[in-house]
Amino acid sequence: METEFLSWLRARLPDHPRFLLGPGDDAAVLRLAGDHCVVTSDMLNDGTDFISGQSDWRLVGRKALAVNLSDLAAMAARPIAAVVSLLLPRQGGLQIAQAMYGGLLDLADEFDLPIAGGDTNTWDGRTVISVTAIGQTTEDGFWRRSGARAGDHILVTGHFGGSILGRQFSFVPRVREALQLNAEYRIHAATDVSDGLTLDLSHILESSACGAELRMDWIPVSEDARRLADNAGEGPSSALEHALGDGEDFELILAVPPDDAIRLLQEQPLGVPISRIGQFVHEPGLWQVEAGGTRLPLPPRGFRH
Amino acid sequence: METEFLSWLRARLPDHPRFLLGPGDDAAVLRLAGDHCVVTSDMLNDGTDFISGQSDWRLVGRKALAVNLSDLAAMAARPIAAVVSLLLPRQGGLQIAQAMYGGLLDLADEFDLPIAGGDTNTWDGRTVISVTAIGQTTEDGFWRRSGARAGDHILVTGHFGGSILGRQFSFVPRVREALQLNAEYRIHAATDVSDGLTLDLSHILESSACGAELRMDWIPVSEDARRLADNAGEGPSSALEHALGDGEDFELILAVPPDDAIRLLQEQPLGVPISRIGQFVHEPGLWQVEAGGTRLPLPPRGFRH
Repeated sequence: METEFLSWLRARLPDHPRFLLGPGDDAAVLRLAGDHCVVTSDMLNDGTDFISGQSDWRLVGRKALAVNLSDLAAMAARPIAAVVSLLLPRQGGLQIAQAMYGGLLDLADEFDLPIAGGDTNTWDGRTVISVTAIGQTTEDGFWRRSGARAGDHILVTGHFGGSILGRQFSFVPRVREALQLNAEYRIHAATDVSDGLTLDLSHILESSACGAELRMDWIPVSEDARRLADNAGEGPSSALEHALGDGEDFELILAVPPDDAIRLLQEQPLGVPISRIGQFVHEPGLWQVEAGGTRLPLPPRGFRH
Repeated sequence: METEFLSWLRARLPDHPRFLLGPGDDAAVLRLAGDHCVVTSDMLNDGTDFISGQSDWRLVGRKALAVNLSDLAAMAARPIAAVVSLLLPRQGGLQIAQAMYGGLLDLADEFDLPIAGGDTNTWDGRTVISVTAIGQTTEDGFWRRSGARAGDHILVTGHFGGSILGRQFSFVPRVREALQLNAEYRIHAATDVSDGLTLDLSHILESSACGAELRMDWIPVSEDARRLADNAGEGPSSALEHALGDGEDFELILAVPPDDAIRLLQEQPLGVPISRIGQFVHEPGLWQVEAGGTRLPLPPRGFRH
């Protein structure tokens, strides 16, 4: 299958000025704008990240790239290329591969991202897709999870919760937003929300050795979270709880010094809204603060691997 | 499982001067010596590349990295880092992961190669390991498959055939040899032998738009190939045929202009022998030439994907 598929694929992989040598040789050679490279990798599998027969293969392929671009966004890195490895069932593998690549290449096009090769095989098992994205840092530097300081405001892009209703596959990684924010504002620390707003925030807290107070009434709760809460037959999960722990929102959490945060909230320079949800504090731990001033521990929730 | 495993793994991943930011954040940031990066990826699966219960997991992990380093060697690129993604059965996955990483990290150590992160998950299926290797070009430039010219000698490192007896897992990728050859000799084209000596040579022929004549009595046949031929119960496969088509030798095929080829053969500068096996010719196609002068078409053989 590989030869037939590779012919199909090659015709769909245009040359790109970033290639000193494109795919088809033993490896690809990429031109970078500097001497740093940023690298991240995610592997999705049938049964955990998508379900064969229920998931749209185009969206699966798209997501496999999108989650990696979201990681680059969380570093404020510019995407340079991606490599894509597929493991496919012998039955129907070619159709699956073409559909996954269809969705993946559409997203790659949106970000002018060349595919620098990969590996495609069939086996007696279910579908696996692994994508490694390569980025580069810009002159504005890159973001870490460490670096948040007490007093920094906690800002987020977009809305949270209920991504299972569709956004988990259709989200647009915040690459452009991150590059713009990094160019125009001081950002002390950042991450993207894959596991859950509070759980991913707790990763910043661990790396930065500080705590955070979240204002529950400031959390931007998505329409999807409200819809889930309204239709909840099984449990008393509120829309807010969905927002705090559902995950796969792929929005950014940012630690921003107060001056820049206030300017950023005022200017709202992105196509997506930026909201303040709380502030970083000296005392370790995560706390919820009500509008009235009550302060309670807030156990981070989300998808634990 | 992932958290427990990641703690185990982090303790085994030392910091490296090449990391501007090591694994553990949303992505890793690498320092390069220039503004080029070389990238290649391979995915191995249980059933095709190894067999659970029969294969040594340490060797499987080692091989997953080694095949990628062999691709970098085929470009004369210096390895910079690798990212490793594992998909593991829920039953016994932790033990498998630790064993695979054990073998992989030993090889990484040999090449002073840092692991820049990756992804580890469990599922209801069998084991998959995907490795992406990142390299950089040196001041000596890099090798392509294209570039072989009529008159160039065909040189190879090492011996061929019968890698199934063990070398397919234990081979040392020719990274150091490639860098040394690239620094000291003119090399017009190169590839590594994964699918089979003649099949991989045919990739150079296609890319370089030329043909090749091979001297059958010059092929360096491995002891393993002879052992396979001696014990062949099933068919009349000669040791030479094993050498021409078995694959997974992970030796280099080089197109070298005559002056440099003669000097190289005389100097034998590597720890591994370099042999001449024929020459590139204008006429397209692959030909076998006997010592007496007889010339016959030689259909490329090897593992076709």
